[in-house]
Amino acid sequence: MTEVRRSGTRGGRRPGESHTREAILSAARVRFGEVGYDRATIRAIAADAGVDPALVHHFYGTKERLFATAMRLPALPGEVVTSALSSFRADGSVSLGEHMVAAALTFWERVGVLETFLGLLRSALASERAAAMLREFVSETILAPVAAAAADVEPAEAAYRASLVGSQMLGLALTRYVLRLGPLASADAGTLARAIGPTLDRYLTSDLGHRPAQR
Amino acid sequence: MTEVRRSGTRGGRRPGESHTREAILSAARVRFGEVGYDRATIRAIAADAGVDPALVHHFYGTKERLFATAMRLPALPGEVVTSALSSFRADGSVSLGEHMVAAALTFWERVGVLETFLGLLRSALASERAAAMLREFVSETILAPVAAAAADVEPAEAAYRASLVGSQMLGLALTRYVLRLGPLASADAGTLARAIGPTLDRYLTSDLGHRPAQR
Repeated sequence: MTEVRRSGTRGGRRPGESHTREAILSAARVRFGEVGYDRATIRAIAADAGVDPALVHHFYGTKERLFATAMRLPALPGEVVTSALSSFRADGSVSLGEHMVAAALTFWERVGVLETFLGLLRSALASERAAAMLREFVSETILAPVAAAAADVEPAEAAYRASLVGSQMLGLALTRYVLRLGPLASADAGTLARAIGPTLDRYLTSDLGHRPAQR
Repeated sequence: MTEVRRSGTRGGRRPGESHTREAILSAARVRFGEVGYDRATIRAIAADAGVDPALVHHFYGTKERLFATAMRLPALPGEVVTSALSSFRADGSVSLGEHMVAAALTFWERVGVLETFLGLLRSALASERAAAMLREFVSETILAPVAAAAADVEPAEAAYRASLVGSQMLGLALTRYVLRLGPLASADAGTLARAIGPTLDRYLTSDLGHRPAQR
């Protein structure tokens, strides 16, 4: 699992570099907030910061990484999901759903993750624009790889199945870490993975009683 | 399903009555916010408002109803849950879980419910005190009747099962109404009930792979 680390900082910085980086992150925060995750481009953020787009790519790599750094996310949720999916071994010891719940709990309990997540959620509750930004980020970086795990179905159905997975996981995070509802807040990760993992398995692979309009 | 209606308002009010009611609701908001749902008493709220506790009971009945009115909830979630549970008929057409999901969606989509719920959640994200108030209200009025539906298990396990149900339902509300994630936001209620209902059924009645420390 890759940390969100500023590249090129190992050997010390050139004078003015940290100022440039801060200008880029500040421009990114404004632009993501104003136009959302989808429509914000590295080119536009670079223009706002008065630097060359190549420098933004050099410092931050991808848009996801720039977003995560700007929002002070200590790790990339998309990489956590991808890593959980690729490290899964269908050896019968745990199901894919159990493996994903366990990975999510480990991720959320890393220093700084929950604070950032709750900050984004607070913004989403306060403004439709922030909700759109979070929706787009979650859809593109977290749910898209989950949807890919719902094999053998059409893209629209895969997206529906991934959003059901998202609903359970978002609810788990809120119930455990915000409301701190006793039994869920104090349960250990293994117990929760066994209880909730099969829900994810079912959302990804079972018949959901869905009757599409045409076939 | 009972509306949260101010009793005794049909035939007009005595002079000063609306002032007294407002003083009670205002005192209730302050006290619920300060000491939480559990520890706020009608006696203390009456004292804060400078009225007799009997008058608070006369105007608002129960503590739950006073809370709901003070927080501008247009209906009592506890009554919605109890009503959904008692109106369920095990005739094989739908499962208890499907019936509960459908009832929740109907409730959330009533005018004013979502706004109040999101306001409470926003407060819970901003302050631990508000989170405690919401946690206690949800536990006592919503999860307690759900736990009663998890028959034939010990109270601690029933509370755990109810909190799992709560996590899925809270996540559904957030994904559908706040993040508005496409597939979940646009799915019709029947489709969602068929997809999510069996999750609730499993949380309430199936083996969750839980291995208690002693037996």
